[in-house]
Amino acid sequence: MLGIGVIGYGYWGPNLVRNFAQIQGVRVAAVCDQRPERRAQVAQLYPAVATYASAQELLADPNVTAVAIATAVESHFALAQQALMAGKHLFVEKPFTTTVAEAEQLVAEAACRGLTLMVGHTFIYTSAVRKIKALLDDGTLGTLYYYDSVRINLGLFQHDVNVLWDLAVHDLSIMDYLIGHMPNLVAATGMAHVPGRPENMAYLTCFFPNQLLAHFHVNWMAPVKVRRTMIGGSEKMIVYDDIEMSEKIKVYDKGIIVSDAENAIYQRHVGYRTGDMWAPRLDNIEALKLETEHFTTCIQTGQTPRSDGQAGLRVVRILEAASRSMANHGQPVAL
Amino acid sequence: MLGIGVIGYGYWGPNLVRNFAQIQGVRVAAVCDQRPERRAQVAQLYPAVATYASAQELLADPNVTAVAIATAVESHFALAQQALMAGKHLFVEKPFTTTVAEAEQLVAEAACRGLTLMVGHTFIYTSAVRKIKALLDDGTLGTLYYYDSVRINLGLFQHDVNVLWDLAVHDLSIMDYLIGHMPNLVAATGMAHVPGRPENMAYLTCFFPNQLLAHFHVNWMAPVKVRRTMIGGSEKMIVYDDIEMSEKIKVYDKGIIVSDAENAIYQRHVGYRTGDMWAPRLDNIEALKLETEHFTTCIQTGQTPRSDGQAGLRVVRILEAASRSMANHGQPVAL
Amino acid sequence: MLGIGVIGYGYWGPNLVRNFAQIQGVRVAAVCDQRPERRAQVAQLYPAVATYASAQELLADPNVTAVAIATAVESHFALAQQALMAGKHLFVEKPFTTTVAEAEQLVAEAACRGLTLMVGHTFIYTSAVRKIKALLDDGTLGTLYYYDSVRINLGLFQHDVNVLWDLAVHDLSIMDYLIGHMPNLVAATGMAHVPGRPENMAYLTCFFPNQLLAHFHVNWMAPVKVRRTMIGGSEKMIVYDDIEMSEKIKVYDKGIIVSDAENAIYQRHVGYRTGDMWAPRLDNIEALKLETEHFTTCIQTGQTPRSDGQAGLRVVRILEAASRSMANHGQPVAL
Amino acid sequence: MLGIGVIGYGYWGPNLVRNFAQIQGVRVAAVCDQRPERRAQVAQLYPAVATYASAQELLADPNVTAVAIATAVESHFALAQQALMAGKHLFVEKPFTTTVAEAEQLVAEAACRGLTLMVGHTFIYTSAVRKIKALLDDGTLGTLYYYDSVRINLGLFQHDVNVLWDLAVHDLSIMDYLIGHMPNLVAATGMAHVPGRPENMAYLTCFFPNQLLAHFHVNWMAPVKVRRTMIGGSEKMIVYDDIEMSEKIKVYDKGIIVSDAENAIYQRHVGYRTGDMWAPRLDNIEALKLETEHFTTCIQTGQTPRSDGQAGLRVVRILEAASRSMANHGQPVAL
Repeated sequence: MLGIGVIGYGYWGPNLVRNFAQIQGVRVAAVCDQRPERRAQVAQLYPAVATYASAQELLADPNVTAVAIATAVESHFALAQQALMAGKHLFVEKPFTTTVAEAEQLVAEAACRGLTLMVGHTFIYTSAVRKIKALLDDGTLGTLYYYDSVRINLGLFQHDVNVLWDLAVHDLSIMDYLIGHMPNLVAATGMAHVPGRPENMAYLTCFFPNQLLAHFHVNWMAPVKVRRTMIGGSEKMIVYDDIEMSEKIKVYDKGIIVSDAENAIYQRHVGYRTGDMWAPRLDNIEALKLETEHFTTCIQTGQTPRSDGQAGLRVVRILEAASRSMANHGQPVAL
Repeated sequence: MLGIGVIGYGYWGPNLVRNFAQIQGVRVAAVCDQRPERRAQVAQLYPAVATYASAQELLADPNVTAVAIATAVESHFALAQQALMAGKHLFVEKPFTTTVAEAEQLVAEAACRGLTLMVGHTFIYTSAVRKIKALLDDGTLGTLYYYDSVRINLGLFQHDVNVLWDLAVHDLSIMDYLIGHMPNLVAATGMAHVPGRPENMAYLTCFFPNQLLAHFHVNWMAPVKVRRTMIGGSEKMIVYDDIEMSEKIKVYDKGIIVSDAENAIYQRHVGYRTGDMWAPRLDNIEALKLETEHFTTCIQTGQTPRSDGQAGLRVVRILEAASRSMANHGQPVAL
Repeated sequence: MLGIGVIGYGYWGPNLVRNFAQIQGVRVAAVCDQRPERRAQVAQLYPAVATYASAQELLADPNVTAVAIATAVESHFALAQQALMAGKHLFVEKPFTTTVAEAEQLVAEAACRGLTLMVGHTFIYTSAVRKIKALLDDGTLGTLYYYDSVRINLGLFQHDVNVLWDLAVHDLSIMDYLIGHMPNLVAATGMAHVPGRPENMAYLTCFFPNQLLAHFHVNWMAPVKVRRTMIGGSEKMIVYDDIEMSEKIKVYDKGIIVSDAENAIYQRHVGYRTGDMWAPRLDNIEALKLETEHFTTCIQTGQTPRSDGQAGLRVVRILEAASRSMANHGQPVAL
Repeated sequence: MLGIGVIGYGYWGPNLVRNFAQIQGVRVAAVCDQRPERRAQVAQLYPAVATYASAQELLADPNVTAVAIATAVESHFALAQQALMAGKHLFVEKPFTTTVAEAEQLVAEAACRGLTLMVGHTFIYTSAVRKIKALLDDGTLGTLYYYDSVRINLGLFQHDVNVLWDLAVHDLSIMDYLIGHMPNLVAATGMAHVPGRPENMAYLTCFFPNQLLAHFHVNWMAPVKVRRTMIGGSEKMIVYDDIEMSEKIKVYDKGIIVSDAENAIYQRHVGYRTGDMWAPRLDNIEALKLETEHFTTCIQTGQTPRSDGQAGLRVVRILEAASRSMANHGQPVAL
């Protein structure tokens, strides 16, 4: 029986507990939260789970083999380090850490101790993103030209992190998984409209080798909710709209053909063609179920998680550079 | 009778001719186009209109009091200069010129000669943009926070100008009219995916004083057509979707209220409110009809056109700076 | 403390229990379900609630003052009658009963015993329907011309009742509440595409006095999910789209004006006007919360429920007539 | 050179003239319209075309070999009869005639004289409808279950014909082409909201053998424009949305499978599956171009037009029966 300890029982923690609790051969051994009313709720719903007020107590519990951290991002590093020191396998919610240095230290620490380290890039376990990954990997799209993402709505303002760390982190984790390599240059611009608060809207550009351009628009202050990613390739293009209920992914058979008879034809246009559109069926498996099972499987088999510490580090590296660029009116930052 | 001479009878010229021909007290005196088959078409539809193969001939025609230029952008400056030299009032399609220097010279020339100079920023004469202008001017939106525009589709590739000069020019002319003052910093990134061709996709950011941020996404290679502008203010927000048939403008009564009891409430969110949405009725007057009438009225009354040479110059100034920034991976350029 | 007994803990029962359990001064005293695994679930989540395998036992429990029935429709009548006989106030899920005769008997029985009788027409407690009701009651729409509803999707096939009793019952309960009086004629057509099964698609028309026409399209076999109601009036029209997240209700300022100068103008059109559209903000109160609170308040105050037995009876009356018409290829049936 | 005479140069006539004028080997010989200003417009645009004030004159013109009638429907019969009597091939706009008797007489007359007779069911020549026809003919949809069409908007009120003859005629001509056989029973309900005027909204049901049901919703008084047809089959379903610009046709791989292990599984649902959606590319050929070419080809080759007099007659037969049913509150009428 693999015992999981969950640190932080706020908005997201209950989802982790519920999912870990349903995995065969796994049990939630302990939950810790500073707030007595949150611990009371755990006690009521899961009488068999130990509850602690401090992470130290939880880490001292011999039934806890692996730890999942779902606290505010600024506490991730200290808690994660303590967990690794205590010899626990580790799952950390995204963003992994607040700095590259912290992320690197955790990655090294876990590697050195042979512990599993996974970051909660939940979106990469969704049926939509897994489907897109399959379409990219089998060459359906051809050469990638661009990745364009919009994630906006009128919602919660975070007081501690800017909108990039709060919203773009989702899209960067998706892009990292889909594209599979790092950009070499990053530029970001943003604006804080509430005095003394972090940026509530931002635009982020990532430059890749081979003329691939990625762009992200995030905004806490939009009049409408949009969750749309377009991925353009030489052969096909994908529109992934996460708000759509029945057709989240549309694959467009539209590409550019540059005509050979250039002079004659190029006068007014590059030849273009338009073709069918196809919206593939997606499976219904819950992302968080896959994610939590993947974590426990990795612990049991020694397999490297799909969203390992390196993935978390790569995303933090982009976010850190983007924040630097944003402070500088979009001055590009090399990675 | 005010006689108009139209130079260039390709894609857009016929629309200008048709509209000028319907204005009371105005007549299309002459049309010039190098291609005999285009001149033949004019002759067939408008037997009373003189046709010329060269602009020189048209400018020499004593019936021509004012000239409208609807040729490829690289020929605008030379033709415009000749027209002004010949003492003609001048209407030039957008983009006004290919450089700031050219635009400045034309503005100075027209001013010096007391000639009317207007640039074909057609969108600012649409019922949608006029309605938005009214809402901005009466303070409905409060303090402006952002201007975000997306104009993308799979369409014609221009071989001579990049996608900013072809598509963003529309949005910059709209923004110039709506906002009424210039940004002080510009940054743009883009990519050319067809070897040896200009950029086919670009992102442009304009920084204004007072924390107003404007952003433009243009793309010739998208799988779907999008024409959407969001304008966010402290009191209300507008979504302007030019593809919508019946509800092009939606006004959202959604704003941000920063709560006074900060510590208590700001823990998780800036207070927010959501309210009604309102889609105002728009009139059906054709933009080009208004625009051509406005030009002739300005000639007759000496009034300064709403989209005068200065407006054309401002848009070219942004485009020139943006192209410079784009060549530099988004390095910001001060205006 | 008002004690509620819930009969049936299948799909909907848990929602009733959860809502009744949260009302001040009310408690769920008992739940009954034939299936041991359902009773076990109640026992786990609500240790203080008594569980019974039979309705008789629940009705004999002295802590049960009022009963809510959430079983299959064919069992409603027998259970409801027993509950009333046992002197319990009564809440019955929709459809109220399977025949008019049954509904009449229950209404009479409750009246005679002075017991509160309410039918679970949940939709009339939603913020959208309450808003529409307010707009109708204050005369905003003018004279009502039509009521057109579409409720379709590829979903569950009911084996016991046809699609009218399963889907149209929602729309009829909404219409009954909004319009406030009965149609005098009903016609329905439908088709059963699975041999030996009830109709899986149907069209229902209700004729009202004063030229008001209502029409309902229901279908278990559609390729897409639609939940849309249009209400046309002489002054304004409403589109109520229950799938829309942010703008469920749109009010169109479009009506018909019949011009006075008939002969001259009527040649080609009745004069028409188009105006603004307005999407009012809706509150976020959960319908089932309002509904369950309303039931308990009615018991405590003697007030007649908004969706009382008469409302349930009216809806069953239409459904019964519609089924009769449908068996006859749409032969109209007078009410 | 095949000479065409067009009778009626109002809203639709100019489109016919423009298209006939572009066909190789065909010329528009004459146009007739009672209104001098309409004739003047013909004379200006097409100096070589003879213009007449009366149909008699046009029919007497020896250059006219075939006649196209685009006048108000009540004049179709008399004009068509005169044209056939004069030995002209005949194209009549839809609705073909105002009664079945008239349509039968014209069909017989044309057959007896060996003249080509075609009805202007333009929609069946659109790329969308041709694509659907191909999908039906190759068995892609399986057994047809239903045909559901909505054609509504706030538009012109016809003073002479009711909304069925004005709007449903389009959908009936499409259905006639797609399904290929007649319904055996028709029921319709409708309402006239402007005193003394024909019905402005209607619902029409057509019963076919083999459990196929067709339904049409037409309305001149809706707040929004809808043009949507759903076609449900045992294997696939089609949604045809004529307002969509880029994806007019969507084919859903969703059907019903009735499970064999009935008792166990049928408790709650007929087994269902959901699959991919596919939006096929459509060609860009203008329907009216195909239609007019088809008419002239049929004259030249003796081929029977796809939308011949029989097709026109079948549609009129349904419309006549539907009007009868509508006058009777939906009493079904056998065909």
